[in-house]
Amino acid sequence: MIKALQILGCSSGFISQRLKKPHSGNGLSLISSKISYNSTPKPLSFRAIQMFSTQSQSNSDAPSSSSVAVHSAGNVHKIKFCQWCGGPAKHEIPDGEEKIRAICTLCGKIAYQNPKMVVGCLIEHDRKILLCKRNIEPSFGLWTLPAGYLEIGESAAEGAIRETWEEAGAEVEVISPFAQLDIPLIGQTYVIFLAKLKKPRFSPGPESSECCLFELDNIPFDSLAFSSIFVTLNLYIEDVKSGKVKFHYGTINKRLGTGPSDIRAFTLDYHLQV
Amino acid sequence: MIKALQILGCSSGFISQRLKKPHSGNGLSLISSKISYNSTPKPLSFRAIQMFSTQSQSNSDAPSSSSVAVHSAGNVHKIKFCQWCGGPAKHEIPDGEEKIRAICTLCGKIAYQNPKMVVGCLIEHDRKILLCKRNIEPSFGLWTLPAGYLEIGESAAEGAIRETWEEAGAEVEVISPFAQLDIPLIGQTYVIFLAKLKKPRFSPGPESSECCLFELDNIPFDSLAFSSIFVTLNLYIEDVKSGKVKFHYGTINKRLGTGPSDIRAFTLDYHLQV
Repeated sequence: MIKALQILGCSSGFISQRLKKPHSGNGLSLISSKISYNSTPKPLSFRAIQMFSTQSQSNSDAPSSSSVAVHSAGNVHKIKFCQWCGGPAKHEIPDGEEKIRAICTLCGKIAYQNPKMVVGCLIEHDRKILLCKRNIEPSFGLWTLPAGYLEIGESAAEGAIRETWEEAGAEVEVISPFAQLDIPLIGQTYVIFLAKLKKPRFSPGPESSECCLFELDNIPFDSLAFSSIFVTLNLYIEDVKSGKVKFHYGTINKRLGTGPSDIRAFTLDYHLQV
Repeated sequence: MIKALQILGCSSGFISQRLKKPHSGNGLSLISSKISYNSTPKPLSFRAIQMFSTQSQSNSDAPSSSSVAVHSAGNVHKIKFCQWCGGPAKHEIPDGEEKIRAICTLCGKIAYQNPKMVVGCLIEHDRKILLCKRNIEPSFGLWTLPAGYLEIGESAAEGAIRETWEEAGAEVEVISPFAQLDIPLIGQTYVIFLAKLKKPRFSPGPESSECCLFELDNIPFDSLAFSSIFVTLNLYIEDVKSGKVKFHYGTINKRLGTGPSDIRAFTLDYHLQV
């Protein structure tokens, strides 16, 4: 059974509705953090919460698309050569910087590594949500939103629409930004849009074995592929129940000592809402 | 003089207040687009507008931080070697994909290129905005918000706070997400947060020659460094004047045939607000 702890006056019901669903062996806490308050001329609606659960399930947390075969969350020492001239790399802090970079010993160029954006759609149709069962690793057989890495030359909205077409065979129209969820440990940022089907048709692409519409009360929370999807769906359900769908920013910090498959082993920090 | 044209029923006053400021020789139009409408259970506040101006000024549009010395907006053919094993790269479409990638002819790894996030803060203090005059190229001598590339291992909010410290010597607290602005042509996404000074102190870092608080009516729109900053500040001023500061998503598409220094030569597409 999930246990929820809400302290420090957090007004959020986030995750609380999940308490009614059986997640055997999981403990889950909800703690408001103290990070922010409002000094803008006009009050914004936001709050800060921190969430973590105490037990994992056998899911995987990693890139949500096969479109990135080589993913490194910033291990600079894996870069051994210059991709522009082929020269051997050294690993030093460049002048005027603070972090170790891979620097070419021949041409002097620096190979910077930066977080990647994963873009996707939260598609509602007839008060149901479209999910895809993954036909690829990681998280084979588990459910996710259609999402994948943003490509150079496209906007986040365009990328989310493309990924939805590729993974769910669905033509969608982006309605609104819904969430930005950073995952610093693996160098990813999820950017999720609310979207609607242009036509009531969808079918699994090569990366999916199945695509289904789930009622909000029947979302398979025990079989989700990634922490980011777990958070996104919970925030959405909470918003729908509260009567106002908002935009959410937050950081998913994986708990130390937990594996990538432990999709509930995280804290949600810096949760801000507009 | 700027000319504004507002058609298709767009309710936005975006940019309209700029009309009162002298921008000699600039023409600027505001057109609502038809991209989106709302099908979520609870209505979201958003709108879609498309904006473009018809003349440039001598500013530069490029990475807003010196922290990325080598920036390529996705020219895969510049990747000639594998950074992991040093093998020569070939440029082909991998099986199951649609885009040309750099593939190592020895180890077979694919070097994916993805857009980078530029994170920054829009800091209000006493109804003024903190801007930094750039002490580095590109856009040397022009004004910008403190912002730079997100690093692996930090969240967007943490990155924005770090960049503000580095460029403006200011300790800030993030209040709320304010804007995500994609610039597909150069493979960048700006993520801007509203923030406040923890202490009423700031001083230019090495990348800035000057830091100043500007009243909203005195922001140097004729001397801004980047299109993204131009858009961000205009959206913010409009929000303040309308009495509600919102979250904005949009795509800055540079107009064909214009140079990177033409910071007003763009359309703002897919503008959605929450």
